[in-house]
Amino acid sequence: MISVQEAEKIILSNLFEPTIEEIDFIDGLNRVLAEDIIADRPFPPFNRVTMDGIAINFEIFANGQSTFKIEKTAPAGSPQSKLNTFENCIEVMTGAILPENTDTVVRYEDLKIENNFAQIAIQNIKKGQNVHGIGTDRAINEVLISAGEKINAAKIGVIATVGRSRIKVKTLPTILVISTGDELVDVNQNPAPHQIRKSNAYTLLATLQTWGITATMAHLPDNETTIETNLKKWLQNFDTLILSGGVSAGKFDFIPDVLEKLGVKKRFHQVAQRPGKPFWFGQNAEKKCVFALPGNPVSTFVCMNRYVKFWLDASYNQSTEPIFAILGEDVLFNPPLTYFLQVQIKQENAQIIAYPVSGNGSGDLANLSNVHAFLELPKERNIFKKGEVLRIWK
Amino acid sequence: MISVQEAEKIILSNLFEPTIEEIDFIDGLNRVLAEDIIADRPFPPFNRVTMDGIAINFEIFANGQSTFKIEKTAPAGSPQSKLNTFENCIEVMTGAILPENTDTVVRYEDLKIENNFAQIAIQNIKKGQNVHGIGTDRAINEVLISAGEKINAAKIGVIATVGRSRIKVKTLPTILVISTGDELVDVNQNPAPHQIRKSNAYTLLATLQTWGITATMAHLPDNETTIETNLKKWLQNFDTLILSGGVSAGKFDFIPDVLEKLGVKKRFHQVAQRPGKPFWFGQNAEKKCVFALPGNPVSTFVCMNRYVKFWLDASYNQSTEPIFAILGEDVLFNPPLTYFLQVQIKQENAQIIAYPVSGNGSGDLANLSNVHAFLELPKERNIFKKGEVLRIWK
Repeated sequence: MISVQEAEKIILSNLFEPTIEEIDFIDGLNRVLAEDIIADRPFPPFNRVTMDGIAINFEIFANGQSTFKIEKTAPAGSPQSKLNTFENCIEVMTGAILPENTDTVVRYEDLKIENNFAQIAIQNIKKGQNVHGIGTDRAINEVLISAGEKINAAKIGVIATVGRSRIKVKTLPTILVISTGDELVDVNQNPAPHQIRKSNAYTLLATLQTWGITATMAHLPDNETTIETNLKKWLQNFDTLILSGGVSAGKFDFIPDVLEKLGVKKRFHQVAQRPGKPFWFGQNAEKKCVFALPGNPVSTFVCMNRYVKFWLDASYNQSTEPIFAILGEDVLFNPPLTYFLQVQIKQENAQIIAYPVSGNGSGDLANLSNVHAFLELPKERNIFKKGEVLRIWK
Repeated sequence: MISVQEAEKIILSNLFEPTIEEIDFIDGLNRVLAEDIIADRPFPPFNRVTMDGIAINFEIFANGQSTFKIEKTAPAGSPQSKLNTFENCIEVMTGAILPENTDTVVRYEDLKIENNFAQIAIQNIKKGQNVHGIGTDRAINEVLISAGEKINAAKIGVIATVGRSRIKVKTLPTILVISTGDELVDVNQNPAPHQIRKSNAYTLLATLQTWGITATMAHLPDNETTIETNLKKWLQNFDTLILSGGVSAGKFDFIPDVLEKLGVKKRFHQVAQRPGKPFWFGQNAEKKCVFALPGNPVSTFVCMNRYVKFWLDASYNQSTEPIFAILGEDVLFNPPLTYFLQVQIKQENAQIIAYPVSGNGSGDLANLSNVHAFLELPKERNIFKKGEVLRIWK
């Protein structure tokens, strides 16, 4: 049995290695870029008017003229217009190119317009005001988003602006989520008294969905031959297998043995933690990983959010800084195991407080609905005091 | 011009009113339940074995017997077995029904098994141990998830367990995102010098996607007749319109007038904030809302995440407690406007710290990529000191 820290280290040396694919940029949300996104023009691409009003030549105003004849109007989306007489002005709209021979924009709120003349009603005009200068945000060819960054909604806008309708991103793993055990029936079936409906596999599918991955689902009965035949096929067809159940020490827990037989080398089996101790992890020669998570609902859930998420983030270099919370009440936990305490998170005065959720052990699925995160209580200690700062996983 | 607080109040009295639809439960992630999810059986549905080992009658052990003949094996997924001779035991697997005439499970780790006899190697056995008692988590007919709760991955598992392959949820609004302005060309086009590519509308689409809403996209040129014809049609075909641009005071900003003409009553126009001052909001007699967001990229982004998100959450009774962050450095902002400061969030010792991101005003789209949130600086003050706790929006 290894420690949580050892498990983490082993997982880090058995990562998924994504390749590169090209996709439509609008499908790129939450994907990891495999190329730099470059400014194809300066940002903004021209001296851009930022207020509706008039464009003037500041020199004329500085010399004492405050009323300007309106020569014409420059809307957004038209080629650059030109002020013919320096003493005149051009009415300009937000988004328009600043007209030739002008350098300053005075907004409507500071004007009186009558009979095609605009009178500037204030004194305090600054040369160049209300103009967003060409290239002041970004220079042409500047890297706007770097390869390796995850795409968020704002980055979708940047990618659109530079005209990248197709983008290169890192591929996602194809994942098969596998439920195990003869006691399971499907959601639309009526279980006999000794049976229960599948639930873990659906929770895992939904969890992957929140991480942007659409996974496939399958089931294994407690039959060694069927397990071997199917796992063999699935190891060929998928990058990653996530199993729920079948890895404790029971007579019908064939899975670790079959996996080893199929060339999936065990990296660890059993982690000194509660819940989730029987967790099995392996990788084959083609670097396909198998996560065999213990079958209790809370064990499955903890291992998924603690380890599979960690593995995925690391596989894409997206590992973030650890986050911490303040323990909201004293907790006693005696076994020499790392304890993943179910907590609800409250934010109070910009502080993150974690309040334990009282549950019924690793079997209580319904309780999980209201859990926000897990607080990781190190196995070296038994007493954890209110006010301590501890790492959280969510 | 109204204050941010007034805008918020007006939005709260013009909410979207969802109806109810039935969907497959696996499509339910992030949807809001429109019915209670009830336990169809006790949780767990039988006295469930939680460790692989042997099931015994505790009385026999208490009377001094420590070696038990193994009568048979009870795997998970089989009907309840029965211990025929009280002095014997049954080998049991995790997930199995506790056999009749037994009440306690001793795990393999505490046993020596030889020639079909199991010897208990420890003294400290508690009656009922390693058994998850029927109904101890939840009683039959207990409400497991209440109507009005948002469905997360753990709740998907609960819904599966109780056999609800179809569920009733609140409908989502059909949303049309509309870009405006003759200066815009599409992503795959080469803009002339006075043109730019559409980006705001894509950012809005992607933002809605992160909120679980698949929206549609359209464009309006700067032509009053076309604007009227299209808006009229779209108000019939969609629940909600979100426009970007066309609402400042410019000559070609026809949109507010056209909307009023089409029966969309203005609830407010202009909010005392930066960025996003020209924001227009209205609703028609059929309670369809129109958000006309200012066209600058940062203005659009702030209004979307500050107001549209607020409106959506409130429409589904999902409004959460406000969250706050500690300002990481002094900030001075003179205009009498609420200032939405772009910040990066760092978590330090369970505290949320907000560090200002230096930007180039509301036009700098590229800068937004690295912004984690906006800090709301009230308009009543100008000086904000490092260490102050202020509200954030993300």
